[in-house]
Amino acid sequence: MQVAVIGLGSMGYGMAASLRRAGLTVSGCDINAETVARFAAEHGKGATSPAAAATGADAVLTVVVNADQTDAVLFGGNGAANAMAPGGVIVSCATMSPERAEGLARKADASGCLYVDAPISGGSVRAAEGALTVLASGAPAAMAKAEPVLGAIAAKIYRLGDEPGIGASFKMVNQLLAGVHIAAACEAIVFAKRLGLDIGKVYEVITASAGNSWMFENRVPHVLAGDYSPRSAVEIFTKDLGIITDMARTNTFATPLAAAALQLFLMTAEAGMGKDDDASVARLYAQIANIELP
Amino acid sequence: MQVAVIGLGSMGYGMAASLRRAGLTVSGCDINAETVARFAAEHGKGATSPAAAATGADAVLTVVVNADQTDAVLFGGNGAANAMAPGGVIVSCATMSPERAEGLARKADASGCLYVDAPISGGSVRAAEGALTVLASGAPAAMAKAEPVLGAIAAKIYRLGDEPGIGASFKMVNQLLAGVHIAAACEAIVFAKRLGLDIGKVYEVITASAGNSWMFENRVPHVLAGDYSPRSAVEIFTKDLGIITDMARTNTFATPLAAAALQLFLMTAEAGMGKDDDASVARLYAQIANIELP
Repeated sequence: MQVAVIGLGSMGYGMAASLRRAGLTVSGCDINAETVARFAAEHGKGATSPAAAATGADAVLTVVVNADQTDAVLFGGNGAANAMAPGGVIVSCATMSPERAEGLARKADASGCLYVDAPISGGSVRAAEGALTVLASGAPAAMAKAEPVLGAIAAKIYRLGDEPGIGASFKMVNQLLAGVHIAAACEAIVFAKRLGLDIGKVYEVITASAGNSWMFENRVPHVLAGDYSPRSAVEIFTKDLGIITDMARTNTFATPLAAAALQLFLMTAEAGMGKDDDASVARLYAQIANIELP
Repeated sequence: MQVAVIGLGSMGYGMAASLRRAGLTVSGCDINAETVARFAAEHGKGATSPAAAATGADAVLTVVVNADQTDAVLFGGNGAANAMAPGGVIVSCATMSPERAEGLARKADASGCLYVDAPISGGSVRAAEGALTVLASGAPAAMAKAEPVLGAIAAKIYRLGDEPGIGASFKMVNQLLAGVHIAAACEAIVFAKRLGLDIGKVYEVITASAGNSWMFENRVPHVLAGDYSPRSAVEIFTKDLGIITDMARTNTFATPLAAAALQLFLMTAEAGMGKDDDASVARLYAQIANIELP
């Protein structure tokens, strides 16, 4: 099976490597020419456009930042969709609203392609290991065709329904919780510092208590280490919580916690930390209160 | 060692039983006469006032709802403090602000008693098993004297410092996170329902994803079962998030997420669900949106 991976960032690169390891023929494309050259040297065919990468491919895996970029690499100038083998499947991994996922699926259909809505969860380490979680939905024929691709990149595949957009909805519910939990972790740890507590001890106590969350456990160590190099950036959550609050408004459904968390990520970006690690929300709280963190 | 337990609710009753099991002599007191009678029949000496329970006791364990009740049972009419053996230790378990814990410790000192600030974590099952987590702070002499009591009720004792109030501060940081996480879990699960998702499947996916929290995992099953019998009531969080936002204001520190969560618990209580399970915040979201939950 021939697969084109469009977007060789920290996630896509590892996913492409996992596809190779699973015995598939892989071509890769990225806007960064150096990344393409490195990919060609290490793993397979490098290409300078989505169309070039996708020529004759049975599957195209898009691992870009958002719906607009996914649309552009598939259906824009030199897009992948028209270059694919007839009846090939698009596997779209970017986090986006269900409406955008449904729209892309319709465009794929009009181009004679199958489409799987397949947002992913798990960081770059698990991407490189082929151990991601995939929240997949799509027509049975599309899911069947995508199976070897999903099997190569994921340790756990959730098959959530026949309609594109369901996977996207699940991902947005996860992102609502993840975003609120990161902001809450930052609020709590700086509040603890304001109370004069030993925040290393707070980490030890909370991770063993009912106040724990996956995000508290994962992100507070960045604060304790004073290390805000981006594992996942603040801008990811201004984007995702923005999509969530837009979806909520469209559905006339109030999400006061997601809305409050969005404002905190926006303020953190506004203060110049948009490209830093999302635990930087703690630096925002500390900066406002003139509190010194590690 | 003779120990008086003041407050034989779902937590105190189990803690008193654990003290008995550890070989201590236990007397118990509660405002509910039936509870006292049951305790006397099953475990030891029942008493009708804190003073009667505490006469000659080496340690008094207070397991009441808040700082006001703790103050009343220790230092009010027929209070325990004056009835204790000289140099006895008070072990206070109610969740309260560090300022109130410090104030109670000063009063204990003026009465010739030692004081341990010892908020607890873990439900009634772990209380009965002697397997609570205790967030303890207090002077070394107080901690030493309380050791047999703490050892009998807890699987894990955090010794957080020499000053009363530190244990209370750690507990409030935990409650900030716990309250925000419960409200976020309720926001997310009803939002998922609004999006038309299978919320049982959402539970399965989220508990295996980065959006998970201890509270999501623990409380969402109440929503899925439609069972709002109180394991822990909405009113606990109007109280605790109220203390947190008061502390934050006193410290000139903004806690926008705790403040938003408090409003949601208040609205849930306002809508008549104050004594129901705290997962009832989901019913508030559903009621406003006219969404049917299980």
